[in-house]
Amino acid sequence: MTHKYCYFQGSIIPFDKAHISLNDLGVLRGYGVFDFYRSYNGKPFYLKEHFARFQNSAKSIGLKVPVSFTQFKKITLDLLKKNKVKDASFRAVLLGGPVQNSLAPAKPTFYILNEEAYAPTGEQAKKGVSLMIHEYLRYIPEAKTTNYTEAVKMQKEKMKQKAYEILYVLNGEVLECSTSNIFMIKGNKLITPSKNILKGITRKVILKMAKKDFKIEERDVKLEELFSADEVFISGTNKEVLPVVRIGNKKIGNGKVGEKTKSLQMLWGQEVSNR
Amino acid sequence: MTHKYCYFQGSIIPFDKAHISLNDLGVLRGYGVFDFYRSYNGKPFYLKEHFARFQNSAKSIGLKVPVSFTQFKKITLDLLKKNKVKDASFRAVLLGGPVQNSLAPAKPTFYILNEEAYAPTGEQAKKGVSLMIHEYLRYIPEAKTTNYTEAVKMQKEKMKQKAYEILYVLNGEVLECSTSNIFMIKGNKLITPSKNILKGITRKVILKMAKKDFKIEERDVKLEELFSADEVFISGTNKEVLPVVRIGNKKIGNGKVGEKTKSLQMLWGQEVSNR
Repeated sequence: MTHKYCYFQGSIIPFDKAHISLNDLGVLRGYGVFDFYRSYNGKPFYLKEHFARFQNSAKSIGLKVPVSFTQFKKITLDLLKKNKVKDASFRAVLLGGPVQNSLAPAKPTFYILNEEAYAPTGEQAKKGVSLMIHEYLRYIPEAKTTNYTEAVKMQKEKMKQKAYEILYVLNGEVLECSTSNIFMIKGNKLITPSKNILKGITRKVILKMAKKDFKIEERDVKLEELFSADEVFISGTNKEVLPVVRIGNKKIGNGKVGEKTKSLQMLWGQEVSNR
Repeated sequence: MTHKYCYFQGSIIPFDKAHISLNDLGVLRGYGVFDFYRSYNGKPFYLKEHFARFQNSAKSIGLKVPVSFTQFKKITLDLLKKNKVKDASFRAVLLGGPVQNSLAPAKPTFYILNEEAYAPTGEQAKKGVSLMIHEYLRYIPEAKTTNYTEAVKMQKEKMKQKAYEILYVLNGEVLECSTSNIFMIKGNKLITPSKNILKGITRKVILKMAKKDFKIEERDVKLEELFSADEVFISGTNKEVLPVVRIGNKKIGNGKVGEKTKSLQMLWGQEVSNR
């Protein structure tokens, strides 16, 4: 659910008072980028990293984030205060802006939605989830553009396969999930794809905190190799470290959440409380 | 320019009274389709064909146009009356609808903008235009989804190259332009790509009316073959039959608009006045 107040084009106003033009390029031409971040106990989590990624996403399609990091941080904190929440999600959205018969960007539309913090259920985090496999490469995969039509289109099939997430694969190479990154553990190695993916901030934090216990490999991963992993998990702002016990019709390991994934979930909990 | 009245979610209302939610899937996830059609002298042009294509586009991403053809036609005629215009463009847009923290489509957002009819200048139609070449394949090319980020992103480069349109090419195969189809004439043959493209209604009408004078070939076309054409033109609802005299840095034919393209422009004029 969206909280009562949002940031829209310069001010914090009630969500139901803010609207987008029918002829915004973000609507007519799907021309937009976004970023998704959260706060824990009133503190924005890795906000600098999210802002930098948001700027990069914008740049990759020819847009510019119209506020500085200082302003971005102030808006984020003001939203928490105004909505009287401490644990929350934020969705910053930048669109091309309203146009008249044209493909050329005008004055961008910029807003930030403040949403309820969403996390996997305790059951999902404890027992693990399933992934469905889908051949797909996102448009400008290194950027968080709003082009997620394929993910929306595949929701029905995902339900049918009783999967929690969609794993994108390209010519046998594992890429990422529709809204998360993927990791595999094999012996003392923590392996994760590094090309044609959105480099998640959660992914980055995990790689940092796992360094002392694992040999880290950021490299191409074949689907066959993923099937042979001891343990697999996915990561994301609202998924944290989420164990995967089945991919397509293949069980991972013994089909139970592994000890090394559990240890990373614990480390994640510490990281959150130490910020 | 958008005319004063538009159709929005069941009624005809002033454009500036209609708005989209900040959390419409059409915005947050670029999940939408559209169609673009026009009227000549108060009569919608090939409306049935446009409606059928709109339905197909919707279906290809899992949406359903929420009105029948009869209703679609009535809305179109009502807009012309209400806006007191006879020659106009229409942009029918169907989006996934507002959602709460989800990727699953809800109640779709459906609207039709009524815009000024737009056509190439007399000079462009007489002297021809230039294309720039760009390697790109659209997402679900057979459908008119709203995913046009690449086209918007390339506008600056297009200006720089003084081109009128962007020609999409994939591994040496000619596909389509960013918002038009492409044709080449070689001897008595009229040749046009048929795979990985949006099949334009204008394209269809041209193929129908050219049958008596040309041998029609719908097939793969290599960029090298296009360069060797006698004549080239592009087609689209707001481009009609528009001659092309330069592609990248290559002149087409002698760099002047050819006689066969001129004869198709004449046939097009007749088609329009006969409807």
